[in-house]
Amino acid sequence: MSTVRVALLGCGNVGAQVARLLTAHAEDLAARVGAPLELVGVAVRRLDLDRSATGLDSRLFTTDPLRLATRADVDIVVELIGGVEPARTLVLAAMEQGAAVVTANKTLLAEDGATLHAAAEKFGVDLYYEAAVGGAIPLLRPLRESLAGDRIRRVLGIVNGTTNYVLDRMDTSGAEFADALAEAQLRGLAEADPTADLEGFDAAAKAAILASIAFHTPVVTADVHREGIGQVTAADVTGARDIGAVVKLLAICELADDERSVGVRVHPAMVPREHPLASVHGPYNAVFVESDAAGQLMFYGPGAGGTPSASAVLGDLVTVGRNRLSGTLGPGASRYADLRIQPIAETRTRYRICLDVDDRPGVLASVATVFAEHGVSIETVRQRVHGPDDAELVVVTHEATDDALAATVDGLRVLPSVRDVVSVMRVEGE
Amino acid sequence: MSTVRVALLGCGNVGAQVARLLTAHAEDLAARVGAPLELVGVAVRRLDLDRSATGLDSRLFTTDPLRLATRADVDIVVELIGGVEPARTLVLAAMEQGAAVVTANKTLLAEDGATLHAAAEKFGVDLYYEAAVGGAIPLLRPLRESLAGDRIRRVLGIVNGTTNYVLDRMDTSGAEFADALAEAQLRGLAEADPTADLEGFDAAAKAAILASIAFHTPVVTADVHREGIGQVTAADVTGARDIGAVVKLLAICELADDERSVGVRVHPAMVPREHPLASVHGPYNAVFVESDAAGQLMFYGPGAGGTPSASAVLGDLVTVGRNRLSGTLGPGASRYADLRIQPIAETRTRYRICLDVDDRPGVLASVATVFAEHGVSIETVRQRVHGPDDAELVVVTHEATDDALAATVDGLRVLPSVRDVVSVMRVEGE
Repeated sequence: MSTVRVALLGCGNVGAQVARLLTAHAEDLAARVGAPLELVGVAVRRLDLDRSATGLDSRLFTTDPLRLATRADVDIVVELIGGVEPARTLVLAAMEQGAAVVTANKTLLAEDGATLHAAAEKFGVDLYYEAAVGGAIPLLRPLRESLAGDRIRRVLGIVNGTTNYVLDRMDTSGAEFADALAEAQLRGLAEADPTADLEGFDAAAKAAILASIAFHTPVVTADVHREGIGQVTAADVTGARDIGAVVKLLAICELADDERSVGVRVHPAMVPREHPLASVHGPYNAVFVESDAAGQLMFYGPGAGGTPSASAVLGDLVTVGRNRLSGTLGPGASRYADLRIQPIAETRTRYRICLDVDDRPGVLASVATVFAEHGVSIETVRQRVHGPDDAELVVVTHEATDDALAATVDGLRVLPSVRDVVSVMRVEGE
Repeated sequence: MSTVRVALLGCGNVGAQVARLLTAHAEDLAARVGAPLELVGVAVRRLDLDRSATGLDSRLFTTDPLRLATRADVDIVVELIGGVEPARTLVLAAMEQGAAVVTANKTLLAEDGATLHAAAEKFGVDLYYEAAVGGAIPLLRPLRESLAGDRIRRVLGIVNGTTNYVLDRMDTSGAEFADALAEAQLRGLAEADPTADLEGFDAAAKAAILASIAFHTPVVTADVHREGIGQVTAADVTGARDIGAVVKLLAICELADDERSVGVRVHPAMVPREHPLASVHGPYNAVFVESDAAGQLMFYGPGAGGTPSASAVLGDLVTVGRNRLSGTLGPGASRYADLRIQPIAETRTRYRICLDVDDRPGVLASVATVFAEHGVSIETVRQRVHGPDDAELVVVTHEATDDALAATVDGLRVLPSVRDVVSVMRVEGE
């Protein structure tokens, strides 16, 4: 084989950068792969757009992705269309024709990774997707390969740049959620419809992919407990500061104490300021990993953007190209552990609960009783008088299960002295 | 092949943990490799020590490492003896017998990596050494594989835990160097003879390895400009704080602007507090990578210790074991770029210079003239009166070459109004 032939499906933000770098770094890439990477075609939706910025010969463009993906002379198909369909059909067809696949498609992998991995195994081709999580940050390969001899306990990640930017702005400027979001949109860091980011759908897909790899267990989007940041208020951010913490949207994948189940969740949480994740600012991403032998590791970098994601795609292309030339395959999906998915009700963590209460004797006692009745142990309580007969109670608990906490909150809501449960947020990262 | 047979050379801090984890995680490892990893022997210096903590059958121990390393039934030799000899002889003999090698030996790799890589290529075996740099932190594999499609511009690393602990203590407690070092020794974070750490020998070996991989160029220890932290004073640490920075011992590998040479150096430097490396505390390590497409990445974790290093060794063992089973090899050393080593004199960076001067009119003008004469542009000057006719001048420069700076300092030393050049330190990370 004198060249490795690459077909590109999609030429948006990431695709255009992949095309550019394939040309700009052609010589380096050839030295690293052992043969030139040749771009043989680019599938796009419209042929009438100006694509001169890519520097590509216009004859490379086609509007028939299926035909391009299944060309017999294609070695590697790079899928950058996104979403479940038609991406899945295209990728499966390409693999059936014997092409390896490199993709950044987190949605497809988190929804139906099993089908993709099964096809890769059946047709004896590589399936790589470093760009699907954490943009340019090398994450999946270190988890899958470097830590392959270790036992991962926990993965705590800031994997969505938009929400991190919004929460970081709320922390640094005291802004309310809506203002911080407007600023993110103004700076091009949030989409016009930011639902997928704000509601945690994006992070949940990434969490499913991370958990699958870290725990050798198939995890899909539907297994992920998901809460977005839409309810986070400036008061929550201030409250976090009061306990020496900062609010972050975390993707958490963790092995339960029994080592037989894995919990996967995405939600806002208060993270102590001394934790390495607390100093991840702006749209940056970072993933913190706790394992038996390695201890605490963190991987940090730009989590999105055309060029960073293109870097991850090219890294995969080099590996897959080398494998192709030597007739070998990288490690496939490892699912031997096949752990149970732990329901959120069983998940154990700490909580900060802020209550608006009557300011009269006996209130703290009655509140503490509700916690005790549900077996939730209190770490600290702070009371602050608000008005003549109005006080704020801030309770931080020790570790408790989610259902014990939910029952406690239900109990608090019906307590006559509790006017309002103002906020309930998990405390993570200790 | 029904099992992958592993021989362990050395059973100290790291070796004992590798042995323990091979047993403790046997089932997981077998699932990940595709066959059990069987420990067939452990070479030690003395047979009379109590090794029951490893849980190993005492018949596995031998005092003949060469015989063990060259046994015909050994698939992978794990070398954890350290130092150049006898490690090199053993590793080369093992490869000649067809065994793959996993090692944590930074000294040997930095001194004579070329011989090892050549032997690996000649005998068609894998040579992996993730544990040699950054302990448990997955670094070499991400640099070599994940970023293989990118162009790395710069690697800035805190790669020595002892010196980072000492400098961090000086920063947080205001301690002098000797006191911080004594504390590190008390806590087991510095050896009785801490020369290799303090003088930057350890960091220089790691810098050579990082540079070789990042720039596809053979770099050896002798190519690395090296300065230790023995001269860093409490005043330097305070001075750094005054300019919003912190003193760190950095390993810096960078592509020169002409893209034809690479500079590799280890020295204390002032790093701005907002830089991610500034918040790496205690004995932790972190490596910051700047590349064309990925942008800024950071890898963080425990840089030393038996268990973390064992995690890295096991990660390599899993990959090499898998390769062995499938009859393939991982990517070997890539030296195609073969860049020139840039002498330190040509290296461009910023400097902070602290001068003890006469406090009289015209002094600043004469000092500024010396800088100008050598083409060193000044960014800021701050003057502070010390005594009746005594002042301190702190100059922070724009980027200048090391030889221009050295000539400037020589010029300042002979200036009548300059009583002493109190300190000269590089400013990095902007």
